[in-house]
Amino acid sequence: MIDPRVSTKDERFLQLALNLARRNVGLTGKNPSVGCVITSGDIILGRGNTQLDGRPHAEVVAIKQASDHYLYKKNKRIKDINVYVTLEPCAHDTTSPSCAKEIVNFGASRVVYLTADPDKRTNGKGKLLMEEAGIECIEAQIFKNENSDVLKGYLKQKQTGFPHITLKIGSSLNGKIATKSGESKWITNTLCRRRVQLLRSEHDGILIGKNSIIIDNPRLNLRDAFEIIEDKPIFILDTSFELASIESLSLFDRVRRDKVYIITSTKPKNMIKKTSDFLKGVNIETTKSDLEFLSVEEVLKIISRIGVNRLLVEGGGRVWTSFLKTGFFDEIVMFTGNKIINDSAISCFNDFLPPHTRLGDFPNLTLKSLLKWKDNIEARWEARY
Amino acid sequence: MIDPRVSTKDERFLQLALNLARRNVGLTGKNPSVGCVITSGDIILGRGNTQLDGRPHAEVVAIKQASDHYLYKKNKRIKDINVYVTLEPCAHDTTSPSCAKEIVNFGASRVVYLTADPDKRTNGKGKLLMEEAGIECIEAQIFKNENSDVLKGYLKQKQTGFPHITLKIGSSLNGKIATKSGESKWITNTLCRRRVQLLRSEHDGILIGKNSIIIDNPRLNLRDAFEIIEDKPIFILDTSFELASIESLSLFDRVRRDKVYIITSTKPKNMIKKTSDFLKGVNIETTKSDLEFLSVEEVLKIISRIGVNRLLVEGGGRVWTSFLKTGFFDEIVMFTGNKIINDSAISCFNDFLPPHTRLGDFPNLTLKSLLKWKDNIEARWEARY
Repeated sequence: MIDPRVSTKDERFLQLALNLARRNVGLTGKNPSVGCVITSGDIILGRGNTQLDGRPHAEVVAIKQASDHYLYKKNKRIKDINVYVTLEPCAHDTTSPSCAKEIVNFGASRVVYLTADPDKRTNGKGKLLMEEAGIECIEAQIFKNENSDVLKGYLKQKQTGFPHITLKIGSSLNGKIATKSGESKWITNTLCRRRVQLLRSEHDGILIGKNSIIIDNPRLNLRDAFEIIEDKPIFILDTSFELASIESLSLFDRVRRDKVYIITSTKPKNMIKKTSDFLKGVNIETTKSDLEFLSVEEVLKIISRIGVNRLLVEGGGRVWTSFLKTGFFDEIVMFTGNKIINDSAISCFNDFLPPHTRLGDFPNLTLKSLLKWKDNIEARWEARY
Repeated sequence: MIDPRVSTKDERFLQLALNLARRNVGLTGKNPSVGCVITSGDIILGRGNTQLDGRPHAEVVAIKQASDHYLYKKNKRIKDINVYVTLEPCAHDTTSPSCAKEIVNFGASRVVYLTADPDKRTNGKGKLLMEEAGIECIEAQIFKNENSDVLKGYLKQKQTGFPHITLKIGSSLNGKIATKSGESKWITNTLCRRRVQLLRSEHDGILIGKNSIIIDNPRLNLRDAFEIIEDKPIFILDTSFELASIESLSLFDRVRRDKVYIITSTKPKNMIKKTSDFLKGVNIETTKSDLEFLSVEEVLKIISRIGVNRLLVEGGGRVWTSFLKTGFFDEIVMFTGNKIINDSAISCFNDFLPPHTRLGDFPNLTLKSLLKWKDNIEARWEARY
C-alpha cells in the first residue's frame, strides 16, 4: 500500500532518483549507488548520484547543484524544498558532515526516501536527525523491488556480511562450457560477450578459478564501450598456487597488478616466497582449504574485507559447483549459445548433491528475465531463499 | 518483391486464408493444411480450410459456402470473383473433380495463391488448367516464411521423401532430462506440459524410444483442451522387442491399439510370433538395425509410408542422439525447467561426433522463437542446412 502522503508527483521524482542511482551501479565501491533529486514545486533544483568509489554522496551532489540554481540564490529561504532520495540519508559524519545534516542546513522542508539504510550508524538515525530539525520524513513504500535490485550488493553485505554473488555462465544449448579439449572460443556470440562487459561493469569484483586463467587466458578487463571504467579487482582461486610457475598471462597486459588477488591455501608457503618477478605487485591472500578446495566462506570473507559488495563469478565449472554446493549464490546469468556439443565435453556444473537425491530436492530457481540476442539466449535466474 | 498485380486488399485476404490454414495444422493427414477465401469486391462470399484427414479440400469448402451466399444466388454470373488460396489448387481428379476444375466451374475470374504445389500431379498444372479457362492466376510472392511454416511437413515430404522432424526436449537448466535413477516428473512446469499438448496436436505422429515407454510409462494422448482431437499414430523404437515382455502400459488406457506401431529389428522374429495378448492389435513393423540401433532412415521410410508429414520425437536421449547423428531433424523445441540437477544425471544428448571434434565443427542452430512460461523457457531451434 502506498503511503497517502506520497503523491503522484512524488512518485515521478522518486522514479527519476532511482534512474540516477542505476547509472553508477558497480562503480561506487563499498558505498551503495544512490540517486537524489531536489525540487521546489514542479521545478528540479538539483540532481545527483553517488560518485565513483562512493564519494561524494548523491545528496551532496544534488545539494551543490541546487545551491547554484537561480531560484535558490534569489531566495535563500525558499519554502517548499523537497528532497527525493533512494536511500535514507546517512547520519554519521566522516571527513565531511553527514548527508542528513547537509539536508537540514540546505533548508529542506520534506524528505521522501525509498529504503531505510541497514547501516547501524544511520538506520533510523538519519530520519530522526532530520525530523528533529522539523523536516517531514517519509519512507515511501514504492519501487521496493527496483531499488533492491540497485542496492542488492550493499544490502546483502550489510545483512549477511557476504557479497551478492552472480554466477556468469556461457554454455552450449545442452549445458557444455567447452569441448573435451577445453576449447570454448566461442560458444556464445558477440552480443552475449558484450553483455558480459556490462555485467562486469555492474559488479565490484570478478572471481575466477586458476584453471580458467590457465586454459582460457582471459583478459578480464572492461572493453568496448566500457573501457572508460576502471578495471575491477580480480580474485583468482588457486589452492596449490600453480600460477607461481606461469610465465605469461594476458590478464597482466590489461589489468593493473595491484588489482589482482591470488587466493591460495595456507599450505604452499614456500611457493609464495619463491614467487617469480612475474607476479610482483599481485596481492597474495591465504586461507583454509579442504582437500583441494578453498573454503568458499573464507574466500568470501576476504573479498568482503576488500570492499566488494557485488561479486561476479566467471567460472569455470569447478568454481561454480563449489558456490552451488555451499549455497553461496544469488543469481545465475546463463548465456546459451546455439551449438550442440558432445555430452562428454565439459559441463557447467559437476555433481553437487548426493547421487540418490530425489528430483524434488534439487534446487529450483526463479526466472527473472529472458532475452534473445540473435541466436543466443540470456536467462537471469535468481536463487530462492 | 511483391508482384504489382497483388494489391493491399489481396494481401489482406491472403492473410485471412493463411490464418484459416493454420487452424488445421497437424489434422489433415497426408494432405497439406490449406486456407481459402472467396470474395467479390470487398465482400467475403466463402471461407474454407482443409478438413480433418484432408478431405474436402479448402477450396471445396469455400466454394460450397460461397454458393449459398445470397449475392451469388441472386446473380449466378457475378463478375469479379476472386479466390485466395494458400497453395496452388490441385489439378488431379480423385473421387471428386480437382479443385482447379471446381474453381473454373464456380466462375472465378481471378485466383491468387501463395505457394506452388510441389506435387507432380498439380505443380504448374493447376495454374495452367485455370488459365486455359480464362482465369487470371497469380502466385503472390508474399507470406513465404509464414506459409512454409504451415506447409513444412507436406513440403519436406514431397521434396525429400522424409517427414519434417521436431525433437521435443524437456530438461533442467543444465541440460539434464532425468535424475540418475530416471526420475523426470516433473522437470518442466504445467505450462510447458500444456505446450507439449499443442505440439502433439500440430504433428501427425509421435515417435518415442522403448526406454522412455518403459521408464516414464507416458500416456501420449491429447489432453485438456486438445482431447477433442483424435490421438496421433505413435511409433515406438524397440530394436530387441523388449515390449513383448511388458504386461501393462498407460499408453493403452488412452490410445487405440491400431494407432500404435512398434518398430523393431528384423532379428527377433520368434519374439514377434510369441506376442502376448496384451499387444494384440498393435502394428509391428520390422526394419534393418545396426548393432543395437535401428536405421533412422529406414524407420522414417516406414513412418512416411504410413502418411506422417510432421513427426514429433519425444525422446529419450538415445533416440534424440541418433536423429542428431544422422542429421534427420529440422527443429528442436527445448523446454528448460528451473532446476539444476547433478551432472551425472541423464543428459538430453549423448556424444554424436568423434571425441576430438573442434568447437567450430559442432552444429549451429537458428533460434526461431523464445518464450517465458513463468519460471520455464521454451526455445525453438531450427537446423541450418
